[in-house]
Amino acid sequence: MDTRAAIVDAARKSFAARGYDKTSMRGVAREAGVDPALVHHYFDGKAALFAETMAVPVNPAELIERVLEGGTERLGWRLVETFLTVWEPPERREALVALVRSAMTSEEAARMLREFLGREVFGRLASAAGAEDAQLRGALAASQMIGVVIARYVVRVPGLTDASRGELVERLGPVLQGYLVDGPVRPE
Amino acid sequence: MDTRAAIVDAARKSFAARGYDKTSMRGVAREAGVDPALVHHYFDGKAALFAETMAVPVNPAELIERVLEGGTERLGWRLVETFLTVWEPPERREALVALVRSAMTSEEAARMLREFLGREVFGRLASAAGAEDAQLRGALAASQMIGVVIARYVVRVPGLTDASRGELVERLGPVLQGYLVDGPVRPE
Repeated sequence: MDTRAAIVDAARKSFAARGYDKTSMRGVAREAGVDPALVHHYFDGKAALFAETMAVPVNPAELIERVLEGGTERLGWRLVETFLTVWEPPERREALVALVRSAMTSEEAARMLREFLGREVFGRLASAAGAEDAQLRGALAASQMIGVVIARYVVRVPGLTDASRGELVERLGPVLQGYLVDGPVRPE
Repeated sequence: MDTRAAIVDAARKSFAARGYDKTSMRGVAREAGVDPALVHHYFDGKAALFAETMAVPVNPAELIERVLEGGTERLGWRLVETFLTVWEPPERREALVALVRSAMTSEEAARMLREFLGREVFGRLASAAGAEDAQLRGALAASQMIGVVIARYVVRVPGLTDASRGELVERLGPVLQGYLVDGPVRPE
Protein backbone atom coordinates (compact mmCIF):
# COMPACT_ATOMS: atom_id res chain seq x y z
CA MET A 1 0.00 0.00 0.00
CA ASP A 2 1.42 3.43 -0.86
CA THR A 3 1.48 6.27 1.67
CA ARG A 4 -1.56 8.05 0.33
CA ALA A 5 -3.64 4.86 0.40
CA ALA A 6 -2.43 4.14 3.95
CA ILE A 7 -3.61 7.60 5.05
CA VAL A 8 -7.03 7.15 3.45
CA ASP A 9 -7.34 3.74 5.04
CA ALA A 10 -6.47 5.08 8.51
CA ALA A 11 -8.88 8.00 8.02
CA ARG A 12 -11.72 5.69 7.00
CA LYS A 13 -11.23 3.65 10.16
CA SER A 14 -11.04 6.72 12.36
CA PHE A 15 -14.19 8.35 10.90
CA ALA A 16 -16.07 5.09 11.39
CA ALA A 17 -14.84 4.49 14.94
CA ARG A 18 -14.88 8.08 16.30
CA GLY A 19 -17.15 10.00 14.00
CA TYR A 20 -16.30 13.13 12.07
CA ASP A 21 -15.82 15.58 14.93
CA LYS A 22 -13.35 13.50 16.93
CA THR A 23 -11.17 12.54 14.00
CA SER A 24 -8.08 14.75 13.55
CA MET A 25 -5.45 15.02 10.81
CA ARG A 26 -2.81 14.37 13.49
CA GLY A 27 -4.57 11.23 14.76
CA VAL A 28 -4.91 9.88 11.23
CA ALA A 29 -1.18 10.48 10.64
CA ARG A 30 -0.33 8.58 13.80
CA GLU A 31 -2.52 5.63 12.85
CA ALA A 32 -1.13 5.55 9.33
CA GLY A 33 2.40 5.72 10.76
CA VAL A 34 3.32 8.82 8.76
CA ASP A 35 4.34 12.38 9.51
CA PRO A 36 1.35 14.79 9.96
CA ALA A 37 2.90 17.06 7.31
CA LEU A 38 2.38 14.28 4.77
CA VAL A 39 -1.33 14.10 5.53
CA HIS A 40 -1.54 17.85 4.93
CA HIS A 41 0.49 17.44 1.78
CA TYR A 42 -2.05 15.05 0.29
CA PHE A 43 -5.26 16.49 1.72
CA ASP A 44 -6.33 20.07 2.12
CA GLY A 45 -8.00 19.57 5.50
CA LYS A 46 -10.30 17.09 7.21
CA ALA A 47 -13.23 17.75 4.86
CA ALA A 48 -11.12 16.78 1.84
CA LEU A 49 -9.95 13.65 3.62
CA PHE A 50 -13.51 12.71 4.51
CA ALA A 51 -14.71 13.25 0.93
CA GLU A 52 -11.90 10.94 -0.19
CA THR A 53 -12.83 8.14 2.24
CA MET A 54 -16.45 8.43 1.14
CA ALA A 55 -15.41 8.20 -2.52
CA VAL A 56 -17.04 11.59 -2.99
CA PRO A 57 -15.18 13.11 -5.89
CA VAL A 58 -15.67 16.71 -4.73
CA ASN A 59 -14.62 18.68 -1.68
CA PRO A 60 -17.86 20.09 -0.30
CA ALA A 61 -16.09 22.58 2.00
CA GLU A 62 -14.37 24.11 -1.01
CA LEU A 63 -17.61 24.37 -2.99
CA ILE A 64 -19.39 26.03 -0.08
CA GLU A 65 -16.55 28.54 0.23
CA ARG A 66 -16.98 29.42 -3.41
CA VAL A 67 -20.77 29.79 -3.09
CA LEU A 68 -20.35 32.00 -0.03
CA GLU A 69 -17.86 34.31 -1.69
CA GLY A 70 -20.72 35.90 -3.60
CA GLY A 71 -22.35 37.15 -0.38
CA THR A 72 -25.94 36.60 0.73
CA GLU A 73 -27.57 38.18 -2.29
CA ARG A 74 -28.98 35.37 -4.45
CA LEU A 75 -27.16 32.86 -2.21
CA GLY A 76 -30.09 30.41 -2.51
CA TRP A 77 -29.95 30.32 -6.30
CA ARG A 78 -26.17 29.91 -6.40
CA LEU A 79 -26.33 27.12 -3.85
CA VAL A 80 -28.92 25.12 -5.80
CA GLU A 81 -27.03 25.65 -9.06
CA THR A 82 -23.72 24.48 -7.54
CA PHE A 83 -25.30 21.56 -5.74
CA LEU A 84 -27.16 20.23 -8.78
CA THR A 85 -24.06 20.66 -10.97
CA VAL A 86 -22.10 18.48 -8.53
CA TRP A 87 -24.73 15.74 -8.81
CA GLU A 88 -24.97 15.82 -12.60
CA PRO A 89 -22.17 13.59 -13.96
CA PRO A 90 -23.53 10.00 -13.78
CA GLU A 91 -20.33 8.39 -12.46
CA ARG A 92 -20.09 10.94 -9.64
CA ARG A 93 -23.78 10.61 -8.91
CA GLU A 94 -23.37 6.90 -8.36
CA ALA A 95 -20.85 7.51 -5.57
CA LEU A 96 -23.07 10.17 -4.00
CA VAL A 97 -26.18 7.97 -4.14
CA ALA A 98 -24.19 5.21 -2.45
CA LEU A 99 -23.19 7.65 0.29
CA VAL A 100 -26.79 8.77 0.87
CA ARG A 101 -27.97 5.15 0.87
CA SER A 102 -25.44 4.14 3.50
CA ALA A 103 -26.46 7.09 5.71
CA MET A 104 -30.05 5.82 5.48
CA THR A 105 -29.27 2.32 6.63
CA SER A 106 -26.27 2.57 8.96
CA GLU A 107 -26.29 4.64 12.14
CA GLU A 108 -22.52 4.99 11.87
CA ALA A 109 -22.72 6.45 8.37
CA ALA A 110 -25.65 8.68 9.40
CA ARG A 111 -23.61 10.06 12.27
CA MET A 112 -20.63 10.82 10.05
CA LEU A 113 -22.81 12.53 7.46
CA ARG A 114 -24.64 14.49 10.16
CA GLU A 115 -21.46 15.74 11.81
CA PHE A 116 -19.81 16.46 8.50
CA LEU A 117 -22.77 18.36 7.07
CA GLY A 118 -23.23 20.27 10.31
CA ARG A 119 -19.65 21.42 10.54
CA GLU A 120 -18.55 21.86 6.95
CA VAL A 121 -21.69 22.69 5.06
CA PHE A 122 -24.78 23.93 6.83
CA GLY A 123 -22.98 25.50 9.75
CA ARG A 124 -21.04 27.70 7.34
CA LEU A 125 -24.03 28.47 5.23
CA ALA A 126 -26.18 29.41 8.16
CA SER A 127 -23.58 31.49 9.92
CA ALA A 128 -23.03 33.36 6.66
CA ALA A 129 -26.71 34.24 6.89
CA GLY A 130 -25.85 35.44 10.40
CA ALA A 131 -29.23 34.92 12.04
CA GLU A 132 -29.78 33.71 15.59
CA ASP A 133 -31.79 30.72 14.35
CA ALA A 134 -28.86 29.80 12.09
CA GLN A 135 -28.90 26.09 12.95
CA LEU A 136 -32.56 25.62 12.06
CA ARG A 137 -32.08 27.62 8.85
CA GLY A 138 -29.14 25.49 7.82
CA ALA A 139 -31.03 22.31 8.63
CA LEU A 140 -34.06 23.37 6.58
CA ALA A 141 -31.81 24.08 3.61
CA ALA A 142 -30.20 20.68 4.15
CA SER A 143 -33.58 18.95 4.22
CA GLN A 144 -34.62 20.44 0.87
CA MET A 145 -31.34 19.55 -0.80
CA ILE A 146 -31.35 16.00 0.60
CA GLY A 147 -34.97 15.63 -0.46
CA VAL A 148 -34.44 16.84 -3.98
CA VAL A 149 -31.56 14.47 -4.76
CA ILE A 150 -33.42 11.53 -3.23
CA ALA A 151 -36.60 12.33 -5.15
CA ARG A 152 -34.68 13.02 -8.38
CA TYR A 153 -32.04 10.29 -8.33
CA VAL A 154 -33.12 7.55 -5.91
CA VAL A 155 -36.93 7.31 -5.76
CA ARG A 156 -37.08 9.00 -9.21
CA VAL A 157 -40.32 10.91 -8.75
CA PRO A 158 -41.72 11.85 -12.18
CA GLY A 159 -41.65 15.60 -12.68
CA LEU A 160 -38.35 15.88 -10.84
CA THR A 161 -36.44 13.38 -12.94
CA ASP A 162 -37.31 15.20 -16.15
CA ALA A 163 -37.01 18.78 -14.89
CA SER A 164 -33.97 20.63 -16.23
CA ARG A 165 -31.36 22.02 -13.88
CA GLY A 166 -32.41 25.56 -14.84
CA GLU A 167 -36.03 24.83 -13.97
CA LEU A 168 -35.04 23.46 -10.58
CA VAL A 169 -32.78 26.43 -9.86
CA GLU A 170 -35.71 28.74 -10.61
CA ARG A 171 -38.08 26.87 -8.27
CA LEU A 172 -35.69 25.94 -5.47
CA GLY A 173 -33.52 29.07 -5.48
CA PRO A 174 -36.06 31.35 -3.77
CA VAL A 175 -36.88 28.63 -1.24
CA LEU A 176 -33.24 28.21 -0.22
CA GLN A 177 -32.85 31.98 -0.16
CA GLY A 178 -35.84 32.12 2.17
CA TYR A 179 -34.52 29.43 4.48
CA LEU A 180 -31.01 30.84 4.71
CA VAL A 181 -31.28 34.58 4.29
CA ASP A 182 -34.78 36.01 4.41
CA GLY A 183 -37.05 35.57 7.39
CA PRO A 184 -39.81 32.97 7.53
CA VAL A 185 -42.84 34.19 5.61
CA ARG A 186 -45.57 34.77 8.16
CA PRO A 187 -49.10 33.77 7.25
CA GLU A 188 -51.39 36.80 7.08
CA MET B 1 -54.27 -17.87 7.75
CA ASP B 2 -57.55 -15.97 7.99
CA THR B 3 -59.15 -14.33 4.97
CA ARG B 4 -57.92 -10.81 5.74
CA ALA B 5 -54.33 -12.01 6.16
CA ALA B 6 -54.60 -14.00 2.90
CA ILE B 7 -55.71 -10.85 1.07
CA VAL B 8 -52.84 -8.78 2.51
CA ASP B 9 -50.41 -11.52 1.59
CA ALA B 10 -51.65 -11.70 -2.00
CA ALA B 11 -51.57 -7.90 -2.23
CA ARG B 12 -47.99 -7.72 -0.99
CA LYS B 13 -46.91 -10.22 -3.64
CA SER B 14 -48.79 -8.39 -6.38
CA PHE B 15 -47.41 -4.94 -5.47
CA ALA B 16 -43.90 -6.38 -5.43
CA ALA B 17 -44.26 -8.28 -8.72
CA ARG B 18 -46.33 -5.78 -10.74
CA GLY B 19 -45.87 -2.45 -9.01
CA TYR B 20 -48.60 -0.20 -7.69
CA ASP B 21 -50.27 0.84 -10.92
CA LYS B 22 -50.80 -2.66 -12.32
CA THR B 23 -52.14 -4.18 -9.12
CA SER B 24 -55.95 -4.26 -8.91
CA MET B 25 -58.39 -5.13 -6.13
CA ARG B 26 -59.87 -7.77 -8.45
CA GLY B 27 -56.48 -9.33 -9.19
CA VAL B 28 -55.65 -9.48 -5.50
CA ALA B 29 -58.98 -11.19 -4.79
CA ARG B 30 -58.28 -13.78 -7.46
CA GLU B 31 -54.83 -14.53 -6.11
CA ALA B 32 -56.13 -14.75 -2.54
CA GLY B 33 -58.90 -17.07 -3.75
CA VAL B 34 -61.66 -14.86 -2.35
CA ASP B 35 -64.60 -12.90 -3.73
CA PRO B 36 -63.66 -9.31 -4.80
CA ALA B 37 -66.46 -8.02 -2.56
CA LEU B 38 -64.53 -9.35 0.42
CA VAL B 39 -61.44 -7.36 -0.50
CA HIS B 40 -63.61 -4.23 -0.67
CA HIS B 41 -65.19 -5.19 2.62
CA TYR B 42 -61.83 -5.17 4.39
CA PHE B 43 -60.07 -2.37 2.50
CA ASP B 44 -61.39 0.96 1.34
CA GLY B 45 -59.53 0.94 -1.99
CA LYS B 46 -56.09 0.11 -3.32
CA ALA B 47 -54.32 2.86 -1.33
CA ALA B 48 -55.60 1.41 1.95
CA LEU B 49 -54.51 -2.07 0.89
CA PHE B 50 -51.06 -0.76 -0.03
CA ALA B 51 -50.68 1.06 3.28
CA GLU B 52 -51.55 -2.21 5.03
CA THR B 53 -48.95 -4.25 3.13
CA MET B 54 -46.35 -1.61 3.93
CA ALA B 55 -47.27 -1.72 7.61
CA VAL B 56 -48.08 1.98 7.30
CA PRO B 57 -50.69 2.58 9.96
CA VAL B 58 -52.41 5.41 8.09
CA ASN B 59 -54.24 5.69 4.79
CA PRO B 60 -52.46 8.49 2.92
CA ALA B 61 -55.21 8.86 0.33
CA GLU B 62 -57.71 9.55 3.10
CA LEU B 63 -55.45 12.13 4.77
CA ILE B 64 -54.88 13.93 1.48
CA GLU B 65 -58.63 14.05 0.88
CA ARG B 66 -59.07 15.69 4.26
CA VAL B 67 -56.29 18.23 3.62
CA LEU B 68 -57.77 19.10 0.22
CA GLU B 69 -61.26 19.65 1.58
CA GLY B 70 -60.09 22.99 2.94
CA GLY B 71 -59.37 24.32 -0.55
CA THR B 72 -56.13 25.89 -1.77
CA GLU B 73 -56.01 28.67 0.80
CA ARG B 74 -53.31 27.80 3.36
CA LEU B 75 -53.06 24.33 1.78
CA GLY B 76 -49.27 24.29 2.34
CA TRP B 77 -49.56 24.88 6.08
CA ARG B 78 -52.32 22.26 6.49
CA LEU B 79 -50.32 19.72 4.53
CA VAL B 80 -47.18 20.15 6.65
CA GLU B 81 -49.20 20.02 9.86
CA THR B 82 -50.99 16.82 8.82
CA PHE B 83 -47.84 15.19 7.52
CA LEU B 84 -45.77 15.90 10.62
CA THR B 85 -48.61 14.75 12.87
CA VAL B 86 -48.67 11.41 11.06
CA TRP B 87 -44.94 10.97 11.69
CA GLU B 88 -45.06 11.91 15.36
CA PRO B 89 -46.00 8.74 17.31
CA PRO B 90 -42.72 6.80 17.74
CA GLU B 91 -44.15 3.34 16.97
CA ARG B 92 -45.71 4.60 13.74
CA ARG B 93 -42.56 6.48 12.84
CA GLU B 94 -40.58 3.26 13.03
CA ALA B 95 -42.74 1.65 10.35
CA LEU B 96 -42.51 4.76 8.17
CA VAL B 97 -38.72 5.01 8.51
CA ALA B 98 -38.49 1.34 7.52
CA LEU B 99 -40.60 2.07 4.43
CA VAL B 100 -38.41 5.02 3.41
CA ARG B 101 -35.26 2.97 4.02
CA SER B 102 -36.45 0.16 1.82
CA ALA B 103 -37.30 2.60 -0.97
CA MET B 104 -33.71 3.86 -0.75
CA THR B 105 -32.12 0.48 -1.14
CA SER B 106 -34.47 -1.60 -3.28
CA GLU B 107 -35.51 -0.60 -6.79
CA GLU B 108 -38.71 -2.62 -6.34
CA ALA B 109 -39.68 -0.68 -3.21
CA ALA B 110 -38.67 2.63 -4.84
CA ARG B 111 -40.94 1.85 -7.78
CA MET B 112 -43.89 1.05 -5.54
CA LEU B 113 -43.40 4.19 -3.49
CA ARG B 114 -42.98 6.30 -6.63
CA GLU B 115 -46.13 4.99 -8.28
CA PHE B 116 -48.10 5.17 -5.08
CA LEU B 117 -47.04 8.72 -4.24
CA GLY B 118 -47.62 9.85 -7.80
CA ARG B 119 -51.13 8.47 -8.03
CA GLU B 120 -52.52 8.83 -4.53
CA VAL B 121 -50.68 11.76 -3.03
CA PHE B 122 -48.88 14.28 -5.21
CA GLY B 123 -51.06 13.79 -8.25
CA ARG B 124 -54.11 14.76 -6.20
CA LEU B 125 -52.36 17.61 -4.48
CA ALA B 126 -51.05 19.06 -7.68
CA SER B 127 -54.26 18.72 -9.64
CA ALA B 128 -56.04 20.45 -6.78
CA ALA B 129 -53.66 23.34 -7.43
CA GLY B 130 -54.85 23.05 -11.03
CA ALA B 131 -51.74 24.40 -12.76
CA GLU B 132 -50.32 23.12 -16.03
CA ASP B 133 -47.00 22.32 -14.35
CA ALA B 134 -48.89 20.26 -11.76
CA GLN B 135 -46.54 17.28 -11.89
CA LEU B 136 -43.42 19.33 -11.17
CA ARG B 137 -45.24 21.19 -8.38
CA GLY B 138 -46.33 17.95 -6.74
CA ALA B 139 -42.83 16.51 -7.07
CA LEU B 140 -41.23 19.58 -5.46
CA ALA B 141 -43.63 19.32 -2.54
CA ALA B 142 -42.78 15.62 -2.30
CA SER B 143 -39.06 16.35 -2.28
CA GLN B 144 -39.35 18.77 0.63
CA MET B 145 -41.51 16.41 2.68
CA ILE B 146 -39.25 13.41 1.98
CA GLY B 147 -36.23 15.55 2.85
CA VAL B 148 -37.64 16.83 6.10
CA VAL B 149 -38.49 13.41 7.51
CA ILE B 150 -35.13 11.98 6.45
CA ALA B 151 -33.25 14.92 7.97
CA ARG B 152 -35.40 14.89 11.13
CA TYR B 153 -35.79 11.17 11.79
CA VAL B 154 -33.12 9.27 9.86
CA VAL B 155 -29.96 11.38 9.50
CA ARG B 156 -31.09 13.44 12.55
CA VAL B 157 -29.68 16.79 11.52
CA PRO B 158 -29.39 19.04 14.61
CA GLY B 159 -31.77 21.98 14.37
CA LEU B 160 -34.41 19.81 12.73
CA THR B 161 -34.54 17.13 15.40
CA ASP B 162 -35.19 19.67 18.15
CA ALA B 163 -37.53 21.99 16.22
CA SER B 164 -41.14 21.81 17.39
CA ARG B 165 -43.89 20.83 15.00
CA GLY B 166 -45.28 24.37 15.20
CA GLU B 167 -41.94 25.87 14.24
CA LEU B 168 -41.66 23.55 11.23
CA VAL B 169 -45.21 24.31 10.12
CA GLU B 170 -44.36 28.02 10.22
CA ARG B 171 -41.20 27.59 8.13
CA LEU B 172 -42.32 24.88 5.73
CA GLY B 173 -45.96 25.96 5.29
CA PRO B 174 -45.23 28.92 3.00
CA VAL B 175 -42.74 26.85 0.99
CA LEU B 176 -45.29 24.09 0.32
CA GLN B 177 -47.90 26.75 -0.46
CA GLY B 178 -45.45 28.24 -2.96
CA TYR B 179 -44.72 24.91 -4.62
CA LEU B 180 -48.33 23.79 -4.87
CA VAL B 181 -50.42 26.91 -5.21
CA ASP B 182 -48.54 30.14 -5.82
CA GLY B 183 -46.29 30.65 -8.82
CA PRO B 184 -42.53 30.28 -8.64
CA VAL B 185 -41.00 33.43 -7.19
CA ARG B 186 -39.02 35.08 -9.96
CA PRO B 187 -35.71 36.65 -9.07
CA GLU B 188 -35.74 40.43 -9.64
